[in-house]
Amino acid sequence: MPVNLPAIDPQALNSVAGIRLGWAEAEIKKKNRKDLLIIEVAENSSVSGVFTQNRFCAAPVTVCRDHLASGQGIRALVVNTGCANAGTGERGMQDTLSTCQAVAEVMSVDEKAVLPFSTGVILEHLPMDKLLAGLPTAYANLSADNWADAATAIMTTDVAPKAYSTQIEIDHQMVNITGISKGAGMIHPNMATMLGYLATDAAVSQSLLNEMTKEIADFSFNCISVDGDTSTNDSFIIIATGQSGAQPITSKQDPNYQKLYQALLEAAQILAQAIVRDGEGATKFMSITVNGARTIEEAKTIGFSIGKSPLVKTAFFASDPNLGRILAAIGYASRECKSLEDLDTNGIDLYLGDVLVAEHGGRAASYEEAMGQAVMDQSEIDVRVDLHRGDANVTIWTCDFSYEYVRINADYRT
Amino acid sequence: MPVNLPAIDPQALNSVAGIRLGWAEAEIKKKNRKDLLIIEVAENSSVSGVFTQNRFCAAPVTVCRDHLASGQGIRALVVNTGCANAGTGERGMQDTLSTCQAVAEVMSVDEKAVLPFSTGVILEHLPMDKLLAGLPTAYANLSADNWADAATAIMTTDVAPKAYSTQIEIDHQMVNITGISKGAGMIHPNMATMLGYLATDAAVSQSLLNEMTKEIADFSFNCISVDGDTSTNDSFIIIATGQSGAQPITSKQDPNYQKLYQALLEAAQILAQAIVRDGEGATKFMSITVNGARTIEEAKTIGFSIGKSPLVKTAFFASDPNLGRILAAIGYASRECKSLEDLDTNGIDLYLGDVLVAEHGGRAASYEEAMGQAVMDQSEIDVRVDLHRGDANVTIWTCDFSYEYVRINADYRT
Repeated sequence: MPVNLPAIDPQALNSVAGIRLGWAEAEIKKKNRKDLLIIEVAENSSVSGVFTQNRFCAAPVTVCRDHLASGQGIRALVVNTGCANAGTGERGMQDTLSTCQAVAEVMSVDEKAVLPFSTGVILEHLPMDKLLAGLPTAYANLSADNWADAATAIMTTDVAPKAYSTQIEIDHQMVNITGISKGAGMIHPNMATMLGYLATDAAVSQSLLNEMTKEIADFSFNCISVDGDTSTNDSFIIIATGQSGAQPITSKQDPNYQKLYQALLEAAQILAQAIVRDGEGATKFMSITVNGARTIEEAKTIGFSIGKSPLVKTAFFASDPNLGRILAAIGYASRECKSLEDLDTNGIDLYLGDVLVAEHGGRAASYEEAMGQAVMDQSEIDVRVDLHRGDANVTIWTCDFSYEYVRINADYRT
Repeated sequence: MPVNLPAIDPQALNSVAGIRLGWAEAEIKKKNRKDLLIIEVAENSSVSGVFTQNRFCAAPVTVCRDHLASGQGIRALVVNTGCANAGTGERGMQDTLSTCQAVAEVMSVDEKAVLPFSTGVILEHLPMDKLLAGLPTAYANLSADNWADAATAIMTTDVAPKAYSTQIEIDHQMVNITGISKGAGMIHPNMATMLGYLATDAAVSQSLLNEMTKEIADFSFNCISVDGDTSTNDSFIIIATGQSGAQPITSKQDPNYQKLYQALLEAAQILAQAIVRDGEGATKFMSITVNGARTIEEAKTIGFSIGKSPLVKTAFFASDPNLGRILAAIGYASRECKSLEDLDTNGIDLYLGDVLVAEHGGRAASYEEAMGQAVMDQSEIDVRVDLHRGDANVTIWTCDFSYEYVRINADYRT
């Protein structure tokens, strides 16, 4: 079961003016489950997205990039689960374009106004007849109150749906922020994850939203890892409909910019962390903070070097304070970040929770096994590394590695 | 149990003139097991080594580098298991120097003539009293015929000892090559692995042996991964005693150079593959060949991106031809190798054994699941990727990821 992931309360998910959501059970992979979602976006909204850097990106990712770049205002998102439409060549591209065309017809919008998303098994073709047959049902279902169902409709190996909602006041006007995400395996986003959707009825200019989306992704979805595998289909989208009545925000100097940025960042972080809490087979949730790096890249590389290590992750699963494995993972991070080749390990301190484990690169004289064990026994564990070589700090989030991870991924297609 | 790893036949391990080996049961971690080894090296031998690039390298690795650089002829190697003496700060360094001093006294050689090695748990101090007490026993045991016992004495989580022996003729003179290795977890060597020792009675000049050792490591121990974790203690040593009577080899132009190089490379590859065959929890042995890369770095990065992916490794464990996971791993290899950012996935072909799975970056029209399944059901599996963008080719070796891997690493210290 997910690690401290609260169940969704559909009543607590505020609708966002300008957004409606509709789903269908299209039987793309299995019967009797929501697997097709349309998100309708009001005219004149700003929509921005970041996508996987995997070179084998799926056809829908390529089409999303094209459609966002076309300058055509986005009016709809369409998401299917059960098939990733990746590694499917020219036929996969045609299937995605046909999907956009069909949505455009049903909704009477331009086909370039449609953003397509797929998630599921790679190297298999979309069952287009089933997908196309489901679209009218999804369209007929459109409602502003369907966020909880939408969170369920985009699940694959997820155990629980993931959603978050908050409100902030801008110029005495209440602004809504609501988002959903999915993902449990093949999670090590590189620019974005599979899949996150965040909507607000705040008004933000397109160019500013583009900047915000990239920054927010870098400190939320790009700070999580379940298994180190970057998906072919990662996508993170922010929609700003502008229908709250609050004044448009068009520059970082606007006093309201920071307020909105922080609220969106927090929402994105909670949605990203929800993916880790529901990581395949997860029994622990780890926050790994790296302080005192020279650059964000250094801090992130070390954070992920620890957070991806199978040896570290199995030790956390066992609640075993085998903390030398963390030092080893710090030490080999230079494999992926050249500037760490001059890392002086004699300057490094390591904390587990509040317990000083290593200082000046060696076991701390004050450290006793029982102190580490007490922290390891918890389900939420903070690891902190201080490199003492600069001012850059990053926190990344990850989960442990259990028998259940192996079972899920050995059984995934059966 | 290890994957197709033949049991050692002590009779088949040829002694190498100029090398004697002696072991002790020093109770460093457990009773009644060989855990301390001395390898005596005859005067005037050439000895060369490559070591982990992990920034948190262990004290013995630092001392090995110093002693090799000192120009003092190497006369002895000392290896303990049960404790890695890494993350142990100044006290760890003192312990390693004391070990060298004690060996030097017992053997009447200079302390800089001793190379120290440790393997086991990180962040714990060496039990020096036990180690020092064991040295005289190990010394008294020295014999040219102890290669099989030596292979056992350096094991940690290894299920089986690893050794290999061969002979070649140089100038009508029989030359012996015998080596041992250990390792099963924390295996993703970066310049060398923990631990490989290869000895020959061929005569090779020191400077040429240094070049050979690095090249051989790059295409043997540096081509394996069990879990992607680079150890703090990796060390690979080649010793050439020159006592076979064959003419000294001092340059790559020597007609005997290639003969010796190929024989040493093959021995190193077999010892490296033995580590993968005995990889923690391994049930399958995978050879991943990347053809048509622009550089060796590109080919190796893609090979390891596939070979380290937990999703690929669990699919192999399940004999599930979920081959889209391999495409995904190829696609995200650019995270670790910038020159792959322009990789054209439409040019890529993927083979499983002899079966063409994907061509031009998409599912091959001829591919059927049953064909992939037949290959996956085997215990030795070849994966071949052709990038069609250059002339560089590399093969790396890895194993699958099983429940047993999680069990071993969740239980390691208990």
